Amino acid sequence: MKDPRLMVRPLVRQLRAYVPGEQPKVKGLIKLNTNENPFPPAPKVLAAIRAAVDGRLRLYPNPTGQALRAKLAGFHGCKPENIIVGNGSDELLALATRAFVEPETGTVQFFTPSYSLYPVLAAMHGARTNAVPLKDDFCLPCLEAGWDREAALSFVTTPNAPSGRGYANAELDGLCLRQRGLVLLDEAYVDFANENALGLALKHPHVLVARTFSKAYSLCALRVGYLVGHPELIAALQKIRESYNVNGLGQIGAQATLASLPYYRLNFRRIIATREWLTQALAGLGFQVWPSQTNFILTRPPVFPAKHWLEKLRQRKILVRWFDSPEVRPYLRM
Amino acid sequence: MKDPRLMVRPLVRQLRAYVPGEQPKVKGLIKLNTNENPFPPAPKVLAAIRAAVDGRLRLYPNPTGQALRAKLAGFHGCKPENIIVGNGSDELLALATRAFVEPETGTVQFFTPSYSLYPVLAAMHGARTNAVPLKDDFCLPCLEAGWDREAALSFVTTPNAPSGRGYANAELDGLCLRQRGLVLLDEAYVDFANENALGLALKHPHVLVARTFSKAYSLCALRVGYLVGHPELIAALQKIRESYNVNGLGQIGAQATLASLPYYRLNFRRIIATREWLTQALAGLGFQVWPSQTNFILTRPPVFPAKHWLEKLRQRKILVRWFDSPEVRPYLRM
Repeated sequence: MKDPRLMVRPLVRQLRAYVPGEQPKVKGLIKLNTNENPFPPAPKVLAAIRAAVDGRLRLYPNPTGQALRAKLAGFHGCKPENIIVGNGSDELLALATRAFVEPETGTVQFFTPSYSLYPVLAAMHGARTNAVPLKDDFCLPCLEAGWDREAALSFVTTPNAPSGRGYANAELDGLCLRQRGLVLLDEAYVDFANENALGLALKHPHVLVARTFSKAYSLCALRVGYLVGHPELIAALQKIRESYNVNGLGQIGAQATLASLPYYRLNFRRIIATREWLTQALAGLGFQVWPSQTNFILTRPPVFPAKHWLEKLRQRKILVRWFDSPEVRPYLRM
Repeated sequence: MKDPRLMVRPLVRQLRAYVPGEQPKVKGLIKLNTNENPFPPAPKVLAAIRAAVDGRLRLYPNPTGQALRAKLAGFHGCKPENIIVGNGSDELLALATRAFVEPETGTVQFFTPSYSLYPVLAAMHGARTNAVPLKDDFCLPCLEAGWDREAALSFVTTPNAPSGRGYANAELDGLCLRQRGLVLLDEAYVDFANENALGLALKHPHVLVARTFSKAYSLCALRVGYLVGHPELIAALQKIRESYNVNGLGQIGAQATLASLPYYRLNFRRIIATREWLTQALAGLGFQVWPSQTNFILTRPPVFPAKHWLEKLRQRKILVRWFDSPEVRPYLRM
């Protein structure tokens, strides 16, 4: 009898998988744990997707998302060759790790706390990691000590998750300028921020910006993200993606989204207003709340430890997120 | 000025990407090049997908395809732990390569001709390859010479593509029994065959079977495939997949498909009847046609080289596939 465990690479055997936020099926739950948009996609987007649900589903989708990339290029003032679309931006973060980082010798660098997927991607690939703590207020630290200018790939979540902290473009530009390795600015939440750094991906040949239709554009279920950057970097990523990585209805939904931007911009304003209102209200109740430029807030609840609040809120059918890591253990994200 | 090419791993710089069959936009084209199903998804499947196109698209899909895996387990008489779903079976072939093959030292083994993605996956991963020629009639060769019993991962397309040749379960079982490394039986076209080897994945702890909803179930656009095998192998693959790899509408479409099997079985019979009719008709015109257990045939056209026929047919708006590799250069697949 063969032992199937021995057929698994030691690297994979040792891995601990990334744990996504819960997607429970309890009715009536107030779900604040995975930063999803409270508003549905625009009516025209839903109509465009519905209209595409017919016999054409039997055909393969466009392998490179050609029409979507053309529209995105128009939107961002660049060329389709500057853009790769992915099965959510998560796929693109994984592709970047595999395209730009040598296993064993290459380094994946990121700030802590930030997106907890980065160290998982590095571990899957067998790459080194360099985790550099943000300041206590989640601002970027001084990059003299600990930060590696030569790291093959540095992920920067901007605005930061899970803190919500936004970074100025001038500061990000400074970071890119001093960096010799590749920088990937992960702008999953940028539509709720004051500034965006997309221009840096078109200015610097070693900078990529990641965007997603999941959060701001209410399309989590359809898995569409993209990267913007130098055509040489994009071409390398195109070579190693799945042949048909973005499903057909996702491509159609994303294109229709770009034709309905006023609807979404109104929602951004409403979400930002709610965020500011909630920040004030929680502060009034004794919660410490960090200023956020995202669609979530990180807050330190009073009196009881955060984990107690997590459980108490769950009993009341309110789901929030708590991370069991040293920098954010006293906090809840919602 | 940084040279972005130098940031790409040498391994990736040297890669030649897999070239999928064309998806042209010419109207009125008869498209026989990518083995898509001529029939649309079942009306109930389209209705189920349409009914799911609403505000719920703002939510993440179930990360493991839980409900779909439960239904597949019922269908195949196994447990959900025996099943992983993927963004098309292509994603799962790539995951298997990364989970079970050591870069540099591990070997990916496959027959030639078979699915041209396998060597691409091996090259992306930096693994060795062992390409073993099928017999001239595309039957399995004697496995004494050239075949590596210890190869980390052996891909077997069954029935074979691009030839359409089917293999008996007894023969595949024999191959699995003598193999010390992992065997992945790629059954993308099995619904058009006389036998299927799914039982081998539940019998042997080192055998995986790949299936897809693309070809037989007319859902290419939604990208849903799955693997069946030992829970330890499946668990290893679950650790390294994207967090939300299968989009929400794909999960719903696949579940609805399993509830409409009689519709598809009727289509299989119609496609098989057409295949047999076309085989006869082409033979009458002087084409050599191999017996097929798939939804396509491989044929050697008379008088002119296959590539001429490819071009002539294209001028008449009929798209077929020609592979520029030694074993099949005289043939067209349609």
